[in-house]
Amino acid sequence: MKLLKLTKLVAIATVTVSSLTSSLTMAADGKVYRLKMAESWNTNFPIFGDAPREMARLAEEMSDGRIKITIDSANKHKAPFGVFDMVRSGQYDLGHSASYYWKGKVPNTLYFTTMPFGMTAPEQYGWFYYGGGQALSNKVYNKFGLMSFPGGNTGNQMGGWFQKEINSVDDLKGLKMRIPGFAGEVLAKLGAKPTNIPSGELFTALERRTIDALEWVGPSLDLRMGFHKIAPYYYTGWHEPATELQFLVNQRKWKRLPDDIRTILKTAMKLSAYDMYIQSYHESAENWAKMKSEFPNIQVKSFPKDVMSAMYKANQELLDEKSAEDPLAKEIIDSQQSYMKKARVWTNISDRAYLDSVDAVEQ
Amino acid sequence: MKLLKLTKLVAIATVTVSSLTSSLTMAADGKVYRLKMAESWNTNFPIFGDAPREMARLAEEMSDGRIKITIDSANKHKAPFGVFDMVRSGQYDLGHSASYYWKGKVPNTLYFTTMPFGMTAPEQYGWFYYGGGQALSNKVYNKFGLMSFPGGNTGNQMGGWFQKEINSVDDLKGLKMRIPGFAGEVLAKLGAKPTNIPSGELFTALERRTIDALEWVGPSLDLRMGFHKIAPYYYTGWHEPATELQFLVNQRKWKRLPDDIRTILKTAMKLSAYDMYIQSYHESAENWAKMKSEFPNIQVKSFPKDVMSAMYKANQELLDEKSAEDPLAKEIIDSQQSYMKKARVWTNISDRAYLDSVDAVEQ
Repeated sequence: MKLLKLTKLVAIATVTVSSLTSSLTMAADGKVYRLKMAESWNTNFPIFGDAPREMARLAEEMSDGRIKITIDSANKHKAPFGVFDMVRSGQYDLGHSASYYWKGKVPNTLYFTTMPFGMTAPEQYGWFYYGGGQALSNKVYNKFGLMSFPGGNTGNQMGGWFQKEINSVDDLKGLKMRIPGFAGEVLAKLGAKPTNIPSGELFTALERRTIDALEWVGPSLDLRMGFHKIAPYYYTGWHEPATELQFLVNQRKWKRLPDDIRTILKTAMKLSAYDMYIQSYHESAENWAKMKSEFPNIQVKSFPKDVMSAMYKANQELLDEKSAEDPLAKEIIDSQQSYMKKARVWTNISDRAYLDSVDAVEQ
Repeated sequence: MKLLKLTKLVAIATVTVSSLTSSLTMAADGKVYRLKMAESWNTNFPIFGDAPREMARLAEEMSDGRIKITIDSANKHKAPFGVFDMVRSGQYDLGHSASYYWKGKVPNTLYFTTMPFGMTAPEQYGWFYYGGGQALSNKVYNKFGLMSFPGGNTGNQMGGWFQKEINSVDDLKGLKMRIPGFAGEVLAKLGAKPTNIPSGELFTALERRTIDALEWVGPSLDLRMGFHKIAPYYYTGWHEPATELQFLVNQRKWKRLPDDIRTILKTAMKLSAYDMYIQSYHESAENWAKMKSEFPNIQVKSFPKDVMSAMYKANQELLDEKSAEDPLAKEIIDSQQSYMKKARVWTNISDRAYLDSVDAVEQ
């Protein structure tokens, strides 16, 4: 059977040899490209874990099976925050994680996830793809033999679940809150006590008031954590306006891939990132409706203006410190701030003005 | 030379026959797929025309040249609003246009572009991909042997350029405005005189006050039209909150394509659509900054609340009429309205609350 098939193929190929030469060459060098990806999430973690799976499925289907990506979850490789190192060393070819997880090791990776008081999702994608973001990301990552691309956006994250209201800057003093990263540093400047607690212990910590507050993501992923059952106040966001996950690629591996395989991989990464943004938007809308209907007493609050002002000022001070320490940090921060300034004027006269007008009419 | 190559290939293929069978089969049936696309835009029309070109480039590169898409612009095929018919008949395999252009022929196509007082871009993508929109689009298009997919979003469109301020519903009476489609019908209900004028004559018509106002897109495409040089008021949007263009596909042609080619085409369409949304956002931000710096006296205005209320009411009446006329129209409108209601609650506590908080701090 197999021999017969080959004979037939040669016959066909001989007839249309000119148009087939390149395809046959491709098929001949076209061994299956097996790539290994490490993700920072445990098996079946929703949304965050859907993005790399969608990416792998698209790449496999578009390449007609020539690309096979195996994904190892954190419960397998045991190093959720070690994805940077594992892709750098070549232990894995690809990674799916969040750039700010390794800011302790490479501080300038921080800026590619999200920044307090920073850009919204369309603004940030605009900056990354059309405003110089990709080139700056290359400056940070290429020296480690890595490339980094957007890996999926959560959209605007909520400010978190609070056991008590925040009415003044004084209420932040001594506040024990699970809030990692740059935002934690901002709150620390104002006297809060940011802590980090493993995700499996968060519910109990908030319930027993070991902590006064925590931020996780937003309704899309908060629902399954159950925080809405034990905390009365849900604050709107300021600290992660558009959290973007990242795909990491080992450059040595990349250089050995043919052009069509590279374009397929880049396209699959870019599309699954955008899709995760829309999926997050959808799940947030659905899950917030569920939370609110089961627990109608949840109160959505925004921090009062003087609290926001204090956090804004502390954030600016931190940005100034980072800029003074490192010229590349300054370059990235300046690029983001000047892009955001321009883009925000547009956001305000387009989507925001529209939402304001409609809201006024409907009330 | 060619024969030698084939002999070598057979040798290689015989060795690894099991892994190569599918690739060789693909290569053997893998003639080049030549597809013809008609777009509604003239050659080199920016942004709208970039999306199908980006789509064609991605498809060609990912397929290693097995997909070749030729694009005919409107100045070639002479039927900018005939794309629906030309793809339906098979004269073209693919189209790039806007669904509301053929609402006169197939009224229910209207709903897939944008609706006055409708969804913002992330809300609308959420509805389309996760909230039932694609299935409803199939219901409308499949009976004509067509499929339709998102083809690029302009983001929120501005309400238009006005020679005089609109301070009350009375100011709409007799207002001569270039505003096509459903929004034109809304304004007509309030006594305005919506007109349509070929794009090449718009500048002169507005300058000579043959019309009092016009809407085009937003800064991304308005800048090159020059309206900001001759009209003092730029109103914020209400009538096209997230205009989505469409790719059209002839189903007979589609059924003859192999799976990998289909996945490549679908992925290239979906990605170039998202990209156009971000490109539009970026160009709007850039171009608005340019307009405002060259013509600092441009006044951005929002329609007063009673004008918005009257338009909102007229819009609801029109939606009720459409729903009463056609069960499928009702199904689509109900689906959009109920999705929007849920998604808007989320938009308001996420992006909108964030923008409000930051704006208060910065002022």
